[in-house]
Amino acid sequence: MTMTMDVKHCIIELEKTALDRWCRGDPSGFLEISAADVVYFDPFLPTRLNGWRELSHYYESIRGKIFALHHEMIAPLVQEIGDAAILTFQFISSGDDHAAELRWNCTEVYRRQTEGWRIAQTHWSFTSQGTQEE
Amino acid sequence: MTMTMDVKHCIIELEKTALDRWCRGDPSGFLEISAADVVYFDPFLPTRLNGWRELSHYYESIRGKIFALHHEMIAPLVQEIGDAAILTFQFISSGDDHAAELRWNCTEVYRRQTEGWRIAQTHWSFTSQGTQEE
Repeated sequence: MTMTMDVKHCIIELEKTALDRWCRGDPSGFLEISAADVVYFDPFLPTRLNGWRELSHYYESIRGKIFALHHEMIAPLVQEIGDAAILTFQFISSGDDHAAELRWNCTEVYRRQTEGWRIAQTHWSFTSQGTQEE
Repeated sequence: MTMTMDVKHCIIELEKTALDRWCRGDPSGFLEISAADVVYFDPFLPTRLNGWRELSHYYESIRGKIFALHHEMIAPLVQEIGDAAILTFQFISSGDDHAAELRWNCTEVYRRQTEGWRIAQTHWSFTSQGTQEE
């Protein structure tokens, strides 16, 4: 039970740390914890990215261009399946107090590897309220 | 190696069978292979659904209302992590030859249980070309 709680805490903290860097324009937080075989979906791409090299190429193209002053992880849930951990959460980000909020769904599948937990699958999308202004 | 190939084939066939029923208005194909703790995202919902009961309630509300004459699974990929199998693919659906195509990203995480493979996590979203007409 203690180990299970630790895994959940660990996974959520890994994600929050990478998100903090992401929201300051730094994609390296995610690249450092993404596996060689990571696959990736987001709503700006026409197809899936396959592997760390493709993800890195994409992230380098937007390095320094994304900033969110305010961001919040909503209702994170971790489901453990052996050496896999499925993290699902919603995410709200906005540029400043007056900017439109973006509302996201996210699924990360982490895999326990010898070097630590690594992301094997990332899926970002907009909720039904994704780009509504409030 | 043979077993690994069988898992990939098995997972993709499970998904295709459920999708065939889904595209004829029948959500039971997915409900029958979804786990008790399944979590679910799609672009029409404001939040995550938590558990089979919530998913069932949602699916029953749209039973018989969804039809896609043409549908195609694109580039399915299965990543195995012990008793977990991550299926990612894109999906194209349309009502008839003249209707707008919908282009989807999908992530399913299957878990090997005593009764067989069951879905623990579903995430549907639109690609960047999600609702473009062709």
